[in-house]
Amino acid sequence: MRVPFGEVQEVLRSVLLTRGCPEDLAEQVAREMATNSLEGVYSHGVNRFYWLIRNIDRGWVNVQGRPVLVERFAALERYDGQMGLGVPNALFCMDRAVELAREYGIGLVALRNTNHWMRAATYGLRACAQGLAAICFTNTFPNMPAWGGADPRLGNNPLMLAFPGPEGPVVVDMAMSQFSYGALELAKLDGRQMPLPAGYDEQGELTTDPEQVLKTMRILPMGYWKGSALALLLDLFAAAFSAGNSTAMIGRKYGGDAAVSQVFIAIDYTRIVPPDRAGEIAQEILADLLASEPLEEGGRVVYPGQRRRAVREENLRLGIPVHERVWRKILSLGG
Amino acid sequence: MRVPFGEVQEVLRSVLLTRGCPEDLAEQVAREMATNSLEGVYSHGVNRFYWLIRNIDRGWVNVQGRPVLVERFAALERYDGQMGLGVPNALFCMDRAVELAREYGIGLVALRNTNHWMRAATYGLRACAQGLAAICFTNTFPNMPAWGGADPRLGNNPLMLAFPGPEGPVVVDMAMSQFSYGALELAKLDGRQMPLPAGYDEQGELTTDPEQVLKTMRILPMGYWKGSALALLLDLFAAAFSAGNSTAMIGRKYGGDAAVSQVFIAIDYTRIVPPDRAGEIAQEILADLLASEPLEEGGRVVYPGQRRRAVREENLRLGIPVHERVWRKILSLGG
Repeated sequence: MRVPFGEVQEVLRSVLLTRGCPEDLAEQVAREMATNSLEGVYSHGVNRFYWLIRNIDRGWVNVQGRPVLVERFAALERYDGQMGLGVPNALFCMDRAVELAREYGIGLVALRNTNHWMRAATYGLRACAQGLAAICFTNTFPNMPAWGGADPRLGNNPLMLAFPGPEGPVVVDMAMSQFSYGALELAKLDGRQMPLPAGYDEQGELTTDPEQVLKTMRILPMGYWKGSALALLLDLFAAAFSAGNSTAMIGRKYGGDAAVSQVFIAIDYTRIVPPDRAGEIAQEILADLLASEPLEEGGRVVYPGQRRRAVREENLRLGIPVHERVWRKILSLGG
Repeated sequence: MRVPFGEVQEVLRSVLLTRGCPEDLAEQVAREMATNSLEGVYSHGVNRFYWLIRNIDRGWVNVQGRPVLVERFAALERYDGQMGLGVPNALFCMDRAVELAREYGIGLVALRNTNHWMRAATYGLRACAQGLAAICFTNTFPNMPAWGGADPRLGNNPLMLAFPGPEGPVVVDMAMSQFSYGALELAKLDGRQMPLPAGYDEQGELTTDPEQVLKTMRILPMGYWKGSALALLLDLFAAAFSAGNSTAMIGRKYGGDAAVSQVFIAIDYTRIVPPDRAGEIAQEILADLLASEPLEEGGRVVYPGQRRRAVREENLRLGIPVHERVWRKILSLGG
């Protein structure tokens, strides 16, 4: 079924209000989660909302929490997220990083005790809208074995890089696992297999079955040892810069995604490069990529973020595709 | 055969001097390239030296070139590398980023018109030795097809993250291809197949044969679409921040690795986090990782950089393993 964007947003907002969420925060969460589905990132939009409310109801999320400054030094700031809603906390910190970058050329904000930010690209798009490039990452609870390991010790710690390209933001938003858990959940809902092995089943064999991997949590790191190593470094950075929980600590304290640590870096590169020159360079890079000879006949190479606008327009026109079962569950939350 | 570290360093230095290289730069290049082999990164040490001298001899490297400041704004600086030697240029820029980070908490230096920096980890180790974390990346000439593409349009743009861990630096240094070209060349020298498909052969089939992939340059991105997307963003960042060459421009102008663009970010996180606390967090993260249940009996999970010291000590004691053919070629360069 398809539900109009405005209706999705309004339903999410009203459910959040029943949980004691302040108006402004409910507005932000509803807008961003509805936007994620609108732009085709179904795994981190409407499909994640029931999970968010469950985390609020079990006391993992403090809907009144807002970031509190703990420490600052020039272009660095460190906040405690007060266990608040992940989306408003992250929007706040990205905006602070942008302000620091306006002043110092680059700004870094570290945030601890926050919750799932949903879609990493949200914060890159936010920085790009202000003309800045961004690098953000978060840790998660232990949901991925290290390379050579059998038990989940690493998070699949998403990493996001965004650049304000000549025809809209170019954004890479990637979990350190070959597939994100959101993508596995979506495939399970759709009854699809993954196109490549996603992890190990209970017999220790590689499998493309999302349900098996969701059960074992023995997901494959992207690029094998590479995703494993990068996930470790992102955890070290996020936990140490924020003096917050590491993946291991989150696992021990919660056994799920809560009280995570995040880092937001904004770069106002136009302070050292004429914006026109940077734009020309980006234009040329993207044009060259798009001129790729396709591997398969009739295929086409696209850049990350390129299809966002088209999907957005289609879903605005036709409504957001929502699984009926998911939507019924959300309506049952009261709002 | 094995050659003592001091002898390797001295031979490289004396060859560089015959090419008109100033004493201090020859010293830096010889030290770092010998150290790369010493620490087991054979692909970017002695094995790359003949290639470097060839690039000097064909006029791609200006051995007298040193970075010139083009633009600065607070914590950002932009340099032109004057087509100089990649290693000294990159050491200089990493040191500048560290100095900026001392002043602003974080510093970013963008460098254009420089040459291959050899081993990305070199610069992370340099920042870690001063107690700072670092993120560095470089673009390269087009040597990897984009995901879904058949012709090389992207660089395999190495990315490096380093954190000064409690028992020495933890460093991830990874090309955006599943295997670096250095690793392919080394396997070819050793007559080994790669452990996983590395790219496509001339028939368009996936292959583990390094020689085939070196021929077609149709190397697989790490994590398929993920490495492809990340490589694109690193190129956008490196070329736009430095107002330098993009991968496509390098390909058009040189058809090989020359006049590349690089970015160096240093983070003095101890300005906002007590160093003891950060150290405890890192200690706990690494201990938890090392406690992984091994996937294979008798296996062991290690963290990136963990084996560096042991390899270094062994090679200091026994000499650096060098292919006789490679060593003879270097000796033939005159020095």
